[in-house]
Amino acid sequence: MKVIDGTIASPLGFSADGLHAGFKKRKMDFGWIVSEKPASVAGVYTTNKVIAAPLIVTKTSVKKAGKMKAIVVNSGVANSCTGTQGLEDAYTMQEWTAEKLGVEPDLVGVASTGIIGELLPMDTLKNGLSKIVVNGNADDFAKAILTTDTATKTIAVTETFGRDVVTMAGVAKGSGMIHPNMATMLGFITCDANISSETLQLALSQNVEKTFNQITVDGDTSTNDMVLVMSNGCTLNEEILPDTPEFDKFSKMLNFVMQELAKKIAKDGEGANKLIQVDVVNAPNALDARMMAKSVVGSSLVKTAIFGEDPNWGRILAAVGYAGVDVPVDNVDIMIGGLPVMLASSPVAFDDEEMKDIMHVDEVTITVDLHAGREKGTAWGCDLSYDYVKINALYHT
Amino acid sequence: MKVIDGTIASPLGFSADGLHAGFKKRKMDFGWIVSEKPASVAGVYTTNKVIAAPLIVTKTSVKKAGKMKAIVVNSGVANSCTGTQGLEDAYTMQEWTAEKLGVEPDLVGVASTGIIGELLPMDTLKNGLSKIVVNGNADDFAKAILTTDTATKTIAVTETFGRDVVTMAGVAKGSGMIHPNMATMLGFITCDANISSETLQLALSQNVEKTFNQITVDGDTSTNDMVLVMSNGCTLNEEILPDTPEFDKFSKMLNFVMQELAKKIAKDGEGANKLIQVDVVNAPNALDARMMAKSVVGSSLVKTAIFGEDPNWGRILAAVGYAGVDVPVDNVDIMIGGLPVMLASSPVAFDDEEMKDIMHVDEVTITVDLHAGREKGTAWGCDLSYDYVKINALYHT
Repeated sequence: MKVIDGTIASPLGFSADGLHAGFKKRKMDFGWIVSEKPASVAGVYTTNKVIAAPLIVTKTSVKKAGKMKAIVVNSGVANSCTGTQGLEDAYTMQEWTAEKLGVEPDLVGVASTGIIGELLPMDTLKNGLSKIVVNGNADDFAKAILTTDTATKTIAVTETFGRDVVTMAGVAKGSGMIHPNMATMLGFITCDANISSETLQLALSQNVEKTFNQITVDGDTSTNDMVLVMSNGCTLNEEILPDTPEFDKFSKMLNFVMQELAKKIAKDGEGANKLIQVDVVNAPNALDARMMAKSVVGSSLVKTAIFGEDPNWGRILAAVGYAGVDVPVDNVDIMIGGLPVMLASSPVAFDDEEMKDIMHVDEVTITVDLHAGREKGTAWGCDLSYDYVKINALYHT
Repeated sequence: MKVIDGTIASPLGFSADGLHAGFKKRKMDFGWIVSEKPASVAGVYTTNKVIAAPLIVTKTSVKKAGKMKAIVVNSGVANSCTGTQGLEDAYTMQEWTAEKLGVEPDLVGVASTGIIGELLPMDTLKNGLSKIVVNGNADDFAKAILTTDTATKTIAVTETFGRDVVTMAGVAKGSGMIHPNMATMLGFITCDANISSETLQLALSQNVEKTFNQITVDGDTSTNDMVLVMSNGCTLNEEILPDTPEFDKFSKMLNFVMQELAKKIAKDGEGANKLIQVDVVNAPNALDARMMAKSVVGSSLVKTAIFGEDPNWGRILAAVGYAGVDVPVDNVDIMIGGLPVMLASSPVAFDDEEMKDIMHVDEVTITVDLHAGREKGTAWGCDLSYDYVKINALYHT
């Protein structure tokens, strides 16, 4: 597998565009991804019981058509908590886009992120659709879906399948606590491999638990979170089937793309200065390991300690202890940046100067060794800073 | 039931004392509660898998003896993550106290709070035991168990049982994120009612879920959390038995005392400016209601919004949505200080000035009406301020 300097339109047969339609004051706020032929599609959606209108529409169409030709996204208004009018507007957004492309509405996925409780400004949407083009600027799509993110989040890779080279690309927006609201996580992945929607969904579901579901900024789950994968088969490779070496290869590819996007989202958490990676190793099983890793990376006390560059092993061990996992914690080693701070659940002396250097970086890795098995799990998060409080306290609804 | 201006020593047959032994630099750090006769005892202990030595000792003795004559507490050193030496020291703390009182070691409960990973300074302990007296100053006990708490936490009530007046008192320490570590919650309750340890445990277990387990400062659970209840029967009332009106009366009394202590702890959360109470009403069952209430009060986004005095209904509804409870959320009303901000899961306009006044207080109540049943649940927490980050980031291990 090779990482390439690409965009969401790097896979064969895909194009993307982004522009400023007027959902936001100045920044780009409207974009789409188009596949020249209907692509296999797979999706995962928010686990929040409160589900935004665009997710209902997209989820329904994915189920109905089993294919997707385009994804249209606006940022600035989330079309969430907007009742029946909001649902109607999401369907209209899908229809208008389908008309412009001359395809069935069910072949169009819709996504929104931004203020919740506000209706979509349909004239603004119409304006955006009048200007957007096929074969536009894919970099602008990555910009158009952002809210309070400080940077675009894109990754592209290639992998050989026999004589064929398959390209996969991903773009995401992350965890800004959006005016006035929640961290919406949107992820869009394109690929030119020949794979069925069912097999694609299998690969997506397998990997989402280990990637997007293992990041946390503040534990709050948005009503608009969604990840969509389209694969259009333009490489004309032999179809990738489950339980084959090719599937494993494809799954690894997808895992890498999703993990890279997840890490970019965690690192860009609102007010964040540092990416925190927690590896729980030698656990009885992978699920327990992931739960413990997420418990540590989600602890406000650990997050503030990392912000303060404080190697606070006590808070880490405590978070391991309340992860709700039935694993013995009497023989736990904890390393920060590889330097042991706790061995066999008792603190050990370490060189303060060495630790200072280890923590004074923008990516801190915490390793928790349970000595209780052979499985491992990883989670990603960010530190908790004054800026987090500032950004989320000082906005007024 | 009548609230009285009392101390932990107000119930008949109890005395308490507190002093500075040297676990801390200057502040009081050592105290005890003594009952003139062995009291029935009940306890609840941390759910953290990492359990501090004093809890292991106390839990074992409570189980073994089924009675308690004294509780001895030190603050400043938690005797947590201290291995076999720590366990030995906790047993020694129990033995020395028992010797001084001339009772069986199993009749003495021990508790510690403070720095974790440090051994108990046994000379300091000896010094404290040499100075502490029976019939000392009960107010000093309330002070001696504090760490970074900003105020003592005491409540006392009386209730008539037939011709007898039963007195119950409680004292607690709360949620300072202690140098270098975690919020330890300690609660001690004394009563002079005649009730068996088994019945007392029943009443305690019934009420802890609705009180101490419904508060959150930052979701982190300490290795030292413990609540102990002693009831010595000095009122000579008829024994209180389960499934009787007297038991219900006693249980209500205990619930009130625990709830008042829980609220005092939440309000004094580190860096906290406001107490937040979340009432989830008209739920299908009480457990779901409590889970949803705790989800809202534990949301960093809600906490920062309350700090900023921002009536952010979106964050509240989202937290209801991800509480992990299978309850329809399409017809939710949300009131802040009684003023509706959301009706039937859609936002409603409200008077900004009126809302400003409502939020500019030190106790904010959020009501979530699910219209899905007749049960309710309440949780308490505090806002998330700059000071929380400051206190927890700027300390260095």
